[in-house]
Amino acid sequence: MRSASEGVQPTLLGVLEVEEWRRCAHQMVDFIADYYRDIARFPVRSQVEPGYLAPLLPNEAPENPETLDDVLADVQTKILPGITHWQSPSFFAYYPSNASTAGYLGEMLSGGLSIVGFSWISSPAATELETIVLDWLGKLLRLPKQFLTCEGGTGVIQGTASEAVCVVLLAARQRSKAAQIAGVAANLRVIPTDSSTSFALSPSALRKALAEDTANGYMPFFLCGTLGTTSSAAVDPLSELGNIAQEHGMWFHVDAAYAGNACICPEFRHYLDGVEWADSYCMNPHKWLLTNFDCSTLWVKHPKSLMDALSTRPEVLRNKATDANAVVDLKDLQIPLGRRFRSLKLWFVMRLYGASGLRNYIRSHVSAAQHFESLVKTSDRFEMVAPRSFSLVCFRLKPREVDTESGNILNATLLEAINSRGECFLTHTILDGAYTLRLAVSSSRTELQHVMDAWAVINQEADRLLSTS
Amino acid sequence: MRSASEGVQPTLLGVLEVEEWRRCAHQMVDFIADYYRDIARFPVRSQVEPGYLAPLLPNEAPENPETLDDVLADVQTKILPGITHWQSPSFFAYYPSNASTAGYLGEMLSGGLSIVGFSWISSPAATELETIVLDWLGKLLRLPKQFLTCEGGTGVIQGTASEAVCVVLLAARQRSKAAQIAGVAANLRVIPTDSSTSFALSPSALRKALAEDTANGYMPFFLCGTLGTTSSAAVDPLSELGNIAQEHGMWFHVDAAYAGNACICPEFRHYLDGVEWADSYCMNPHKWLLTNFDCSTLWVKHPKSLMDALSTRPEVLRNKATDANAVVDLKDLQIPLGRRFRSLKLWFVMRLYGASGLRNYIRSHVSAAQHFESLVKTSDRFEMVAPRSFSLVCFRLKPREVDTESGNILNATLLEAINSRGECFLTHTILDGAYTLRLAVSSSRTELQHVMDAWAVINQEADRLLSTS
Repeated sequence: MRSASEGVQPTLLGVLEVEEWRRCAHQMVDFIADYYRDIARFPVRSQVEPGYLAPLLPNEAPENPETLDDVLADVQTKILPGITHWQSPSFFAYYPSNASTAGYLGEMLSGGLSIVGFSWISSPAATELETIVLDWLGKLLRLPKQFLTCEGGTGVIQGTASEAVCVVLLAARQRSKAAQIAGVAANLRVIPTDSSTSFALSPSALRKALAEDTANGYMPFFLCGTLGTTSSAAVDPLSELGNIAQEHGMWFHVDAAYAGNACICPEFRHYLDGVEWADSYCMNPHKWLLTNFDCSTLWVKHPKSLMDALSTRPEVLRNKATDANAVVDLKDLQIPLGRRFRSLKLWFVMRLYGASGLRNYIRSHVSAAQHFESLVKTSDRFEMVAPRSFSLVCFRLKPREVDTESGNILNATLLEAINSRGECFLTHTILDGAYTLRLAVSSSRTELQHVMDAWAVINQEADRLLSTS
Repeated sequence: MRSASEGVQPTLLGVLEVEEWRRCAHQMVDFIADYYRDIARFPVRSQVEPGYLAPLLPNEAPENPETLDDVLADVQTKILPGITHWQSPSFFAYYPSNASTAGYLGEMLSGGLSIVGFSWISSPAATELETIVLDWLGKLLRLPKQFLTCEGGTGVIQGTASEAVCVVLLAARQRSKAAQIAGVAANLRVIPTDSSTSFALSPSALRKALAEDTANGYMPFFLCGTLGTTSSAAVDPLSELGNIAQEHGMWFHVDAAYAGNACICPEFRHYLDGVEWADSYCMNPHKWLLTNFDCSTLWVKHPKSLMDALSTRPEVLRNKATDANAVVDLKDLQIPLGRRFRSLKLWFVMRLYGASGLRNYIRSHVSAAQHFESLVKTSDRFEMVAPRSFSLVCFRLKPREVDTESGNILNATLLEAINSRGECFLTHTILDGAYTLRLAVSSSRTELQHVMDAWAVINQEADRLLSTS
């Protein structure tokens, strides 16, 4: 790259001059590809201190244009040190946020077309492709047909699973017979789970809570079951929960943000059994199906319930196709008005990898997690804290004393020691009171070797900790 | 491009193999640049019929990978006909959705890094850059200092202005003294406007509504003022509204999604007078500040109000910096958990164009709209329906009969005739009962000539219509 001080590179000529756009975009492609090539050079978890960036940047926007070389030099020296590298093959924290070549290409095209697909006429292809690819994905998951367009259901892409749950909650509230329902959040019931059910929701605990609420004059109208909890990827018994929801006339939503993606493989599909009871089903291809963030897919059996709660028809958006009810305007199935053409990336992913490629990808992660699980299980000093589910392993260093607190401090100290090295990044949770390390096989570039390297780092830090404590 | 039938291009080797990623991304850059180069060949408003796409695509995802050439060939022949070309220089519909070279480069980098910036530690640069560039932009707008970090305020990027208003509504509800407030939407008060105030909200009408509501036992807690309405870009009298809000202890939100961007120019800044009364201020750089969708900037004086309503601290997200309250986690200022690194594109835009370039851009659009306004005003058969504001012109063909209905049919027919030609795309609204054409100078590539070409099309279709009717 030319140095800015040579003054060779001009500032941008126009706000969207075609050949300049082409040249700059090619330069950015190389910048990003070089970043991927060199990603192992960076500590996986950023090691900067709070407030590091402000002293490095001016207090005000520049009055006059700067060159792209100037900006990219700042990205390299000032921004990248503050990045936690989610695309590093040694990122095992939280849950994955998948990037892939196909997903990125779809995202590039979506950004390039730069349409806003709130209504059908604002770009018919955006609405129609979204419906089609969500049917494709629904078929790969073998979702009940009522979720597919052929039987009156539909899929719609949301930004995140939180947005999806907001949307269906509003629909459920609208559908419920209570004309006036006070603030929903205040009446949210969180039902505790424990290791007796591997942290899945217990149907008997649910029945008890429903009986209490009903006796107290509340009208439960919404039940959320989870396939793959955030903490430990626990799987709720969907069939039983669905039955209970139906008995009580409740909307049943299944949140399968992470683990649902695995259900494109026949050997994992049984986890979805019971989804036939659900009114809505959500999973995030941006978590584990190679589709760059954001792309959260929501299917509903009765799109009209969403439209009743969310539809708006301001005059400025009226048009022949909408007035004729010939089309669905996707703005009526989400909270915001604006929306990007996100189905492109899902379409690219499904076509460029094929269903077989996607299944292989899921299996490679699960297989790497199984290997890690076997290392934990054959180790003398580590133990599993919950059963391994999918590509997530919950484990800890066995405490030497019986009190919970010292075991928790030991594992928290171990985790910080691991992450401060920068060679890999894991996070934690608390299960039944126990501070637990979570290793999620995450990145689209993670191979078995990266998992084994992480195991080596974990053991080195455990050695050091146990020898000094 | 090679033809797929030659079978030269292989399918993707890996999900993120660096040199393959580089090669494919370069290919996509050229595809998009060629699209921009050739954009005038497409009808601006897509002319397809509802349901056009399903017969062109398979019913199921492919089992095996396809090549990028295959997919791009389908984009060209099957998707682009279904696109309404928001980036065409002859797109004058709705409000703009800006794309620019700088905005796209920032979006590319954001997608390339592919981090999820929910908490500070999940990528410190994402949180810190967002705060810094929103201070930069706040200073360009000369927002009151209480909105900037130096005085305890903060800016935060949301997806859309709808999300921003949801967020502040929740904060306002939380802040309000009413312990139990019933469903907010049911009690939304829409206060009608008319041409007597150029469609701005009348303070006396607001006072009357507040008095009625209070007398009826309601407790108004939230007032939304608009700078640049969707219909006609009307500007509410912010100072007077702010005063009233304060008298009643209401949260005052200013939604300036489109027109607020113009306030970076000193000659337009007076429209923002009164924002000093606001608790929150929102505008969309993705509408009119060269920042690719989505990027809606929200500033609040008291971030704690948002956190009180929205903060979550699940164990899996706990970390040293958060526990020490050394940082703000931006997830606590929005509804979803996940979030992209959107400040990069705003940073790229401000640096690569400079404040001077951004002001010139706004002025060039306003100037083109002024020219169009003068054409309407000097025409015998067209008339303005509302005063021109910013880059939006609301006009219509003068009805030959006095009844409203025939004038409305005339203009609706005219609009459909214009848009069916595909040379430009305008939309409409209804103002005081009158069907009104809206020409919004929109695209980052619109020049005066495109506006004059649109005027010619409008007149040709008016000729045809008046000669046959």
